[in-house]
Amino acid sequence: MSAPAPGTQQAMRRRNLSLVLHALAEEGSLSRASVAARIGLTRAGVSALVEELLRAGLIVELGRGRPGTVGRPGSALALNDQGPCGIGAEIGVDHLSVCAVDLRGTVRARIAVDAANRGRAPEPVLAELNGLIQQITVEARRAGLEPAGLGVAVPGLVGRDQTVVRAPNLGWQGVDLRPLLTTALPVTVDNEANFGALAELREAEWRDFVHVSAEIGIGAAVVVDGELLRGAHGFAGELGHVPVRPDGPACACGGRGCLEQYAGEEAVLRAVGIAPERAAREHPGPGGRIALLARRSEAGDDAVTRALGDAGEALGIALAGAVNLLDPQAVVLGGALAELAPWVLPRLERELSDRLADPARTVRVTVSRPGAEGPLRGSALRIVQSVLDEPPAAA
Amino acid sequence: MSAPAPGTQQAMRRRNLSLVLHALAEEGSLSRASVAARIGLTRAGVSALVEELLRAGLIVELGRGRPGTVGRPGSALALNDQGPCGIGAEIGVDHLSVCAVDLRGTVRARIAVDAANRGRAPEPVLAELNGLIQQITVEARRAGLEPAGLGVAVPGLVGRDQTVVRAPNLGWQGVDLRPLLTTALPVTVDNEANFGALAELREAEWRDFVHVSAEIGIGAAVVVDGELLRGAHGFAGELGHVPVRPDGPACACGGRGCLEQYAGEEAVLRAVGIAPERAAREHPGPGGRIALLARRSEAGDDAVTRALGDAGEALGIALAGAVNLLDPQAVVLGGALAELAPWVLPRLERELSDRLADPARTVRVTVSRPGAEGPLRGSALRIVQSVLDEPPAAA
Repeated sequence: MSAPAPGTQQAMRRRNLSLVLHALAEEGSLSRASVAARIGLTRAGVSALVEELLRAGLIVELGRGRPGTVGRPGSALALNDQGPCGIGAEIGVDHLSVCAVDLRGTVRARIAVDAANRGRAPEPVLAELNGLIQQITVEARRAGLEPAGLGVAVPGLVGRDQTVVRAPNLGWQGVDLRPLLTTALPVTVDNEANFGALAELREAEWRDFVHVSAEIGIGAAVVVDGELLRGAHGFAGELGHVPVRPDGPACACGGRGCLEQYAGEEAVLRAVGIAPERAAREHPGPGGRIALLARRSEAGDDAVTRALGDAGEALGIALAGAVNLLDPQAVVLGGALAELAPWVLPRLERELSDRLADPARTVRVTVSRPGAEGPLRGSALRIVQSVLDEPPAAA
Repeated sequence: MSAPAPGTQQAMRRRNLSLVLHALAEEGSLSRASVAARIGLTRAGVSALVEELLRAGLIVELGRGRPGTVGRPGSALALNDQGPCGIGAEIGVDHLSVCAVDLRGTVRARIAVDAANRGRAPEPVLAELNGLIQQITVEARRAGLEPAGLGVAVPGLVGRDQTVVRAPNLGWQGVDLRPLLTTALPVTVDNEANFGALAELREAEWRDFVHVSAEIGIGAAVVVDGELLRGAHGFAGELGHVPVRPDGPACACGGRGCLEQYAGEEAVLRAVGIAPERAAREHPGPGGRIALLARRSEAGDDAVTRALGDAGEALGIALAGAVNLLDPQAVVLGGALAELAPWVLPRLERELSDRLADPARTVRVTVSRPGAEGPLRGSALRIVQSVLDEPPAAA
């Protein structure tokens, strides 16, 4: 949505190369004629673009490959699954994970380890992460891929300059992670909810949605017409601090009655009489406490079922405000919420439908397709996206 | 934010013509060399574009005009104030107004009449409006302008298909105004808050803001990177129905404790013991009740001052949610709120600063520059904008 670039011949050519790549990303494979019809250029124009993309190793011709016959007009084209790839890394409160995703969006290598990162200094966390990134980079190269960049997902506020402004559940404040990374790749640091939404965007039919993401805290990403809404400082999507009951319990942010005080993991644990610190010790790792809550509710523990319902109600109130403001096509529950959906959804949906300014409006409430994997996959997809948006020139 | 148009030569030329017009709209006047530097094209390229725009009557050369010498490289260029213009119309609950705005953004003709439109059928309202539009069209032509389109501002939800889905304070529901308009101009119908934000955008330094607008109801427009966020159905910005106290009074929308129940004009009147219907009779016309409240508070009426403070608190709670979600640069108070700012602002600002997820973040709270004139001026500016975005070809 920024000011359009001036229309020089070179800018136009780069834009058209990108249009071809995006057409293939959406459709999987297309003939030259279909690409031309889809993006509104002539067959001849598309053929020249295709030649350049083949030379750059960004696309391939499918079918029985006949060497030396590139450019056969009828053959199907696809993004190259032996070309550039994105490396994604997620720093969780209780885990670290890294993956490689090829241009077609397929996860080609993945590693995850439990890690007690709460209150741990950035240096040792990043030292451990560097090792994992190195492993995945080697694996990706072995599979014929060439890493084009690294995306790093963080559970906290990330500024427009990519500094981690505040990651309360890690205890980090004002940290620039980039000097702590040993990779030579270009790095993009962002909030995990934003990356999660990118993964959802790749798989879902929605182009306008609010992607709610819960690990320990509650965040959200707002997607408008297929683009992340970042905000003036990069802090958009702080759903966890939308006031639900303005005179409610004090929140670490300085406010009162924020959504996180009703629907955050710790609030739900406290509501059923479990000390969050003890739960973290006894049920460590990503999703440990969430699995505990799901098991108890499945086993008929009414207190847990009630607490999850109350969390759903609070989410519904906060989301009613968000939907009235943003008018999205859908609300998508990601992260831990995806697993708790059976208990959270009914009261969430009731609040939402009672509180929409136009009762005729429809907003779908769904569970994220990539689920808890979203932020990790999205951090690699961001790199893939940047290759498709600004294709590197042929060597 | 939609998919980029394919880069054909023709599309590129039209985009470049638009870039020249927008550069002049922002700067007032520029030499050819300054235009070239600003938009990143060559001097020769810009000269050709300028010739076309001069021929189309969209721009003029300033300075002592020497007939037959168009194209002198050093002379300053500006948008033509004798060229196309936008006609804007506002349907208020208690007034109708129409204006003409030239390409430079100057209001060149304006008419406004009191009108008791609450509960009045669309047909007689539009019949009256048609007469006013006709008058302003004649005046604009007399001033050497050529109307290029008509924008119509409505206090209610307007769908993406431009139907008035619901304008509760007029009592309209599912009305297509276009068949009721007698003008031959292309028509754009939109919510008054959206048009108000356009007027603000033209005058303010912000590109990311929430523009709160209050006449009888409370609406808002969300502007992201200089563009209106419209929402999947066109209903974005329904700030008036953001829950402030989820168990609060029932609202006409079906929800409870919506912002409008605390900060809408009728809620404030009731809080100080004035029956809204009686106030409407005794203080009719646009701003009648608002002026009454301002006068009473100025005269030391504590109950009124308290009620306006309470409205400010409710606005602050709802806006805290909006700011946490959207991270705008600024919150702009428009419409009636602009006039009540001295009593509304202090508690609004306190709530907002107490409830932001990142205390280090700054959000400016300001009063709209065009104020109550915003929706009317914005409805004409929308037409001007469309001329700048897609300049008509030279005859």
